[in-house]
Amino acid sequence: MFTHTKHLQYQAKPDKPDPQFAKMLQEPLGGQWGEISVMMTYLFQGWSCRGPQKYRDMILDIGTEEIGHVEMLATMIARLLETSPVETQEEAAKNSAVGAIMGGARIEDAILAGMNPQHVIVAGSGPRPVDSAGNLWTAGFMAASGNLLADFRFNLTAESQGRLQVARLYNMTEDRGVRDMLSFLIARDTMHQNQWLAAIRELEEDGLEMTPVPSNFPQDQEMVDVAYQFIGASSGSESRKGPWANGPSPDGRGEFSYAEIQPLANDDGKLGKIDPRMYGTPPAPVPPIAAE
Amino acid sequence: MFTHTKHLQYQAKPDKPDPQFAKMLQEPLGGQWGEISVMMTYLFQGWSCRGPQKYRDMILDIGTEEIGHVEMLATMIARLLETSPVETQEEAAKNSAVGAIMGGARIEDAILAGMNPQHVIVAGSGPRPVDSAGNLWTAGFMAASGNLLADFRFNLTAESQGRLQVARLYNMTEDRGVRDMLSFLIARDTMHQNQWLAAIRELEEDGLEMTPVPSNFPQDQEMVDVAYQFIGASSGSESRKGPWANGPSPDGRGEFSYAEIQPLANDDGKLGKIDPRMYGTPPAPVPPIAAE
Amino acid sequence: MFTHTKHLQYQAKPDKPDPQFAKMLQEPLGGQWGEISVMMTYLFQGWSCRGPQKYRDMILDIGTEEIGHVEMLATMIARLLETSPVETQEEAAKNSAVGAIMGGARIEDAILAGMNPQHVIVAGSGPRPVDSAGNLWTAGFMAASGNLLADFRFNLTAESQGRLQVARLYNMTEDRGVRDMLSFLIARDTMHQNQWLAAIRELEEDGLEMTPVPSNFPQDQEMVDVAYQFIGASSGSESRKGPWANGPSPDGRGEFSYAEIQPLANDDGKLGKIDPRMYGTPPAPVPPIAAE
Amino acid sequence: MFTHTKHLQYQAKPDKPDPQFAKMLQEPLGGQWGEISVMMTYLFQGWSCRGPQKYRDMILDIGTEEIGHVEMLATMIARLLETSPVETQEEAAKNSAVGAIMGGARIEDAILAGMNPQHVIVAGSGPRPVDSAGNLWTAGFMAASGNLLADFRFNLTAESQGRLQVARLYNMTEDRGVRDMLSFLIARDTMHQNQWLAAIRELEEDGLEMTPVPSNFPQDQEMVDVAYQFIGASSGSESRKGPWANGPSPDGRGEFSYAEIQPLANDDGKLGKIDPRMYGTPPAPVPPIAAE
Amino acid sequence: MFTHTKHLQYQAKPDKPDPQFAKMLQEPLGGQWGEISVMMTYLFQGWSCRGPQKYRDMILDIGTEEIGHVEMLATMIARLLETSPVETQEEAAKNSAVGAIMGGARIEDAILAGMNPQHVIVAGSGPRPVDSAGNLWTAGFMAASGNLLADFRFNLTAESQGRLQVARLYNMTEDRGVRDMLSFLIARDTMHQNQWLAAIRELEEDGLEMTPVPSNFPQDQEMVDVAYQFIGASSGSESRKGPWANGPSPDGRGEFSYAEIQPLANDDGKLGKIDPRMYGTPPAPVPPIAAE
Amino acid sequence: MFTHTKHLQYQAKPDKPDPQFAKMLQEPLGGQWGEISVMMTYLFQGWSCRGPQKYRDMILDIGTEEIGHVEMLATMIARLLETSPVETQEEAAKNSAVGAIMGGARIEDAILAGMNPQHVIVAGSGPRPVDSAGNLWTAGFMAASGNLLADFRFNLTAESQGRLQVARLYNMTEDRGVRDMLSFLIARDTMHQNQWLAAIRELEEDGLEMTPVPSNFPQDQEMVDVAYQFIGASSGSESRKGPWANGPSPDGRGEFSYAEIQPLANDDGKLGKIDPRMYGTPPAPVPPIAAE
Repeated sequence: MFTHTKHLQYQAKPDKPDPQFAKMLQEPLGGQWGEISVMMTYLFQGWSCRGPQKYRDMILDIGTEEIGHVEMLATMIARLLETSPVETQEEAAKNSAVGAIMGGARIEDAILAGMNPQHVIVAGSGPRPVDSAGNLWTAGFMAASGNLLADFRFNLTAESQGRLQVARLYNMTEDRGVRDMLSFLIARDTMHQNQWLAAIRELEEDGLEMTPVPSNFPQDQEMVDVAYQFIGASSGSESRKGPWANGPSPDGRGEFSYAEIQPLANDDGKLGKIDPRMYGTPPAPVPPIAAE
Repeated sequence: MFTHTKHLQYQAKPDKPDPQFAKMLQEPLGGQWGEISVMMTYLFQGWSCRGPQKYRDMILDIGTEEIGHVEMLATMIARLLETSPVETQEEAAKNSAVGAIMGGARIEDAILAGMNPQHVIVAGSGPRPVDSAGNLWTAGFMAASGNLLADFRFNLTAESQGRLQVARLYNMTEDRGVRDMLSFLIARDTMHQNQWLAAIRELEEDGLEMTPVPSNFPQDQEMVDVAYQFIGASSGSESRKGPWANGPSPDGRGEFSYAEIQPLANDDGKLGKIDPRMYGTPPAPVPPIAAE
Repeated sequence: MFTHTKHLQYQAKPDKPDPQFAKMLQEPLGGQWGEISVMMTYLFQGWSCRGPQKYRDMILDIGTEEIGHVEMLATMIARLLETSPVETQEEAAKNSAVGAIMGGARIEDAILAGMNPQHVIVAGSGPRPVDSAGNLWTAGFMAASGNLLADFRFNLTAESQGRLQVARLYNMTEDRGVRDMLSFLIARDTMHQNQWLAAIRELEEDGLEMTPVPSNFPQDQEMVDVAYQFIGASSGSESRKGPWANGPSPDGRGEFSYAEIQPLANDDGKLGKIDPRMYGTPPAPVPPIAAE
Repeated sequence: MFTHTKHLQYQAKPDKPDPQFAKMLQEPLGGQWGEISVMMTYLFQGWSCRGPQKYRDMILDIGTEEIGHVEMLATMIARLLETSPVETQEEAAKNSAVGAIMGGARIEDAILAGMNPQHVIVAGSGPRPVDSAGNLWTAGFMAASGNLLADFRFNLTAESQGRLQVARLYNMTEDRGVRDMLSFLIARDTMHQNQWLAAIRELEEDGLEMTPVPSNFPQDQEMVDVAYQFIGASSGSESRKGPWANGPSPDGRGEFSYAEIQPLANDDGKLGKIDPRMYGTPPAPVPPIAAE
Repeated sequence: MFTHTKHLQYQAKPDKPDPQFAKMLQEPLGGQWGEISVMMTYLFQGWSCRGPQKYRDMILDIGTEEIGHVEMLATMIARLLETSPVETQEEAAKNSAVGAIMGGARIEDAILAGMNPQHVIVAGSGPRPVDSAGNLWTAGFMAASGNLLADFRFNLTAESQGRLQVARLYNMTEDRGVRDMLSFLIARDTMHQNQWLAAIRELEEDGLEMTPVPSNFPQDQEMVDVAYQFIGASSGSESRKGPWANGPSPDGRGEFSYAEIQPLANDDGKLGKIDPRMYGTPPAPVPPIAAE
Repeated sequence: MFTHTKHLQYQAKPDKPDPQFAKMLQEPLGGQWGEISVMMTYLFQGWSCRGPQKYRDMILDIGTEEIGHVEMLATMIARLLETSPVETQEEAAKNSAVGAIMGGARIEDAILAGMNPQHVIVAGSGPRPVDSAGNLWTAGFMAASGNLLADFRFNLTAESQGRLQVARLYNMTEDRGVRDMLSFLIARDTMHQNQWLAAIRELEEDGLEMTPVPSNFPQDQEMVDVAYQFIGASSGSESRKGPWANGPSPDGRGEFSYAEIQPLANDDGKLGKIDPRMYGTPPAPVPPIAAE
């Protein structure tokens, strides 16, 4: 059960409207690695968690904080869009080369110059649940598997890709208010990368899960010959000298070796016959039509 | 440029047809964490790689191998589907409780019992580019960011989620031929988890990238107060004692602390006015229609 | 900013596992009219709201409650899945005709009989962000336009479609614990249909918005001849006698009339020529290739 | 069965080409609330209608008219695109600030300035089945439930969101031909909002359906305590004074009350154990691998 | 502009309900190669057609007929679903092995046995805009390019894939009413394959378009060396003897030859440096943060 | 099993960066008719092929070559993006009118002018698996049916639509390096259109498949009356004189005739009653709630 405080976790106040940057800021809101993705990922992982309570509690803490990050980005985008395009263009004209050539009264002139048209036509100057290219957010961007190590590795990835994207955006604006909010989000991503790394260590120290995930699948059931072998399939040879092709493996259970790719069994992939009612090629003799 | 050898990397020979298991085996072929996803991810990362050649070579080696894993799964599914449903049901009747009640000649009876109907109607007993629930594969399942550490973390995740799914599937069949191929795939996932862990270490030892990603964004630009602070937003207190809320952070640059969630600035999220031509609520005075 | 209480708003305790019903219960969780859709819709509408504070406050109250409904359904689904399939089948065998024929130890036998295979393979007995047919939730299921009347009509629709679906599901189970939770959700949908109807009245009484939405677009700019005319385009004539073809219109501004469909202007839809570099049909004379 | 008259219902003749506006006009063609959505929605509702013939006839009348609206928008977009970009730019140069700086012969210069590139590359100066951000139309944008009141509320929403979007577009162009067609579409949306309101009244007067939908689910099966209670979950208190928290409910069956959100039962959401073959966290003792 | 006759083009009367077959029949309604796809494809091609009127007229004739085919399938599916599941099961029990074990009163028992649950939960016994696996129809299934030969080839494909699927379905039912309707659809697909073949011949005889499409791109601008060369990239050699590697090419402009794949230029695919603000790998020297 | 040669099949070296053209070049990479689509189509067709080995070998040859075309386009896009936007703008300023007005240091200024923002934010100057409008590639763009003639017709379509798009792009750039690579791709598409035409002829000469597909469905099971009849459903009459309405049909089995559309059976499409538990309209008497 959730409650809402009508103050943002941190302020989202741009110095001035910037509809073009509003479009770009959709990426950390509704993109593959945006705040909706981590919010939904952590909430679903928390609600599915069957591990010790310290993990469940921690996952739900961060999931709940992320709802507030979605709120901050949504608010920032609404404010970046909130003046009239006419004013925007006049403001913009003072700050950029492209802006300098605009100043007309037609809304579409601003759109020509890089807005997401749905910010006007669909949302009436509000945020959209989309990425910076306008793709709708989909649950294919999230993950919750029931295995905490597999999922914490996903979470570490999400915070890495997310911080990377926000860092890129930081350099794409000079608005001090926008940068102020981004510096908060970047710091939280720093924390969250560290948090998931610490949680991964704790899982391993608690003996709950190790590499390879899932660690309780009996390794004598896997094909041991190729479980620590780097297979070269490409014409270069630089990869052969890497630490992934020599020396002990990180899981401490094997020794890396190197081999060129080759068929390990005799199977040419040819297929057998099928039901004539598939009407495939080659066709079978006149297929039997069941009597009516 | 690629070439193809008309032998599978490892054999894909089921003991007998099993259209129901063919449906389940679509998950590691066309699901979020299936072989198409890692094939496309590694190829795009390789083609985008601007790092040292040993990394680029390594990424393309594994990407090329994965094309062959897609091939193995596609072939296995085609073979699991390749007898007529009539025969399938008779075979099945010997091996399972559900099978025992089937034996009719109507194809749809097999479908009733759990096939993906598109295996018949659309693909004529061939594999489909979908997951086990029938969702079409989408490029939203892959990642390539230009930052190797962010991407290697994704790769480690993919191999963890993938091995987890194949381990689950291993227990869902008793077909020795299917299990034989799965034991090969599980072993390769063991290798690949180790490989990405080794590559992550190498990246860090080469000084190319560290936590937090991206490591060359100047940390004095982020809001240092919250960069190592665990924020509790949930009613439990177990999370407070975890290693993510106390002690040194994994990146070696901070000390974890704990705080209850609270607004860190005074921003109630209220929005300003917008262009009357948005026809929003509240409405502005009669909006100006540009003269024709 | 949000906080989380680690108690569900109302209990989600099934009498016994039922993996088939878990699949069906995905519809009110992750379907077009499920709880994720209303949660995201209300939160985005709240964060975009520029109207009087009583509306913004009300929208965010309900949006926050809905996060807890997503939590209840996710928890219920996890519990419906949480025993081993073996036990499930034995339980099921006592309660249904289909169950009676199962009892083997193969997980896939339960799947054959109607589970979503991703509940096992992907989520390890957890909820999925999908509908009852397995489609991933997408932001194309939500709406936030900046115009409160347009959006409140969407909300009324969502609560109507949602209550309809849950009522159908209520009859599809005999589990008292599941029905207990559904009776809570149905009651909240009763409240929310009433709530949005009351809010629509209030908007109209406050003079903020009326039919037709948007009410401040000047009606003399629309083609008045057809603004209150029912146009018959189908061979039947029953529609002609309906209250939508006779008498005063609900907005109080017009009188309904009836007409058979006919072209209202002379435009045969034929198109003109285009740039030869489109390589269309008919082709233009040899298209000019710009000199290199 | 349908027939086609090769005249548009109303003319679609722009004064001059405008490839940027063609992009924007995709929203009412292929967007969430565009003409394809209402066409498909009404046709499916009509073909699924089991209610009195006057409703079925009415729904199919409007569904058939909407096919013609898709045709009008498709034709308009083709014409807005139909001159060569070179000419477009010269025309545009006379009318807008942005246009003024263009005049080169490269097609991509026009695209730079805001075209949808697929209008050139994919459709060769024709309409696309997409929205203004380029997203492909999906059947997730339509609804047909078998319950007429639930569906008529959807229809009222669609005509409200649709008219809102077209009104916004009306202000985004000064082309008299485009505005002429839009004034026709706006008028039809006025009619259709009124039509669905009249149909909703008629349904209620016929006693076929009432609030709450579905009205024939027995209300003694729902949890009456919370069926008319507004639950505050947000920090503000303005919502408490609204007509949704006091007085009689619109369905005439209850009296609104107000309560702060709190858990209504004792359920902390914790989950039980699952099958060890899920390889989840915590892991079970060595999972049993079925003997081969 | 369209009008609707309230009689189906051909009857859609099943002998008896069959909810499982209703699920399968969704493929020719809402699948990749279903009637919605051809309806939308032909209508968009017609509305985009700039060729001679005989083609435009023909395309719109067939597009209009296809709307009626969508109607027939939607009606058939509604009727296959229209009895109560209880009755369905009793009927079914007489006709199939699986049916024989059902007879309970729980709706979900029918779903267990292969229904699409959304036929009940979402559509209330009506058709859905989805394929047989439940995927929502998307405009990614259609095509309209502005080039008639490219599009007629698509149309020929669609009628081939469509007839193939309906032929498969014909064998999956013994219901005489369903087969009666399918025999109509199969015949129309026979006609339409022939129609598009005739139209392709006519286009070529009219000199409007030839192979290779687009035929008016000047062939001296393409790399002639490889324009008629079959390139072997696979280990087998059977392909070398095919008519695609020897003799004159079908367009009459070339002579097929054969070559093994090899790099045709010296390009190792390595990439150059990029802007340090991308925070990629390798990182650039401390990236410049623009002064605030 | 596949191997990779670290040289491109043909060079992909642009004269200079051009981020706007990089966006457009995404269409032949990740669009509906792009190289990913044909790569995946041919590989799946090859792995599903049960026909004579010469066909399977040929399909896999071309599928393998196409992986290399994806590589070429990915590399070209990475290079078009690889300079800093600052340099890009300076270069651009020399070549285009729009470029002339840019020269500032803000990355977003380049984006304003038509880049795909995800090329910066998500991919860090790398290629994306999307089309030119930014839509993610989906497996709904590919086809493999098990019937070779149905599939070869798809392949011929794909090579026609693909060559058309690349020809359009050829005219949209003046970069000699880009045009050089496009001239290679256009030539391969010339080859591949011819190749599939030759393969279709061979299939027919081998007697494996003929029109109508599937040719071994017994034609006496289809409704012969309408199997060669052109049905006019549109107001024009030009289509009546086409070769599709007169003379022998291309399959040599029929004679085309012409008829106006009319109902061929007496079915008004009305539906029957359904289970009261659907809560549809009209409602049934109080629906039975199963006793708990």
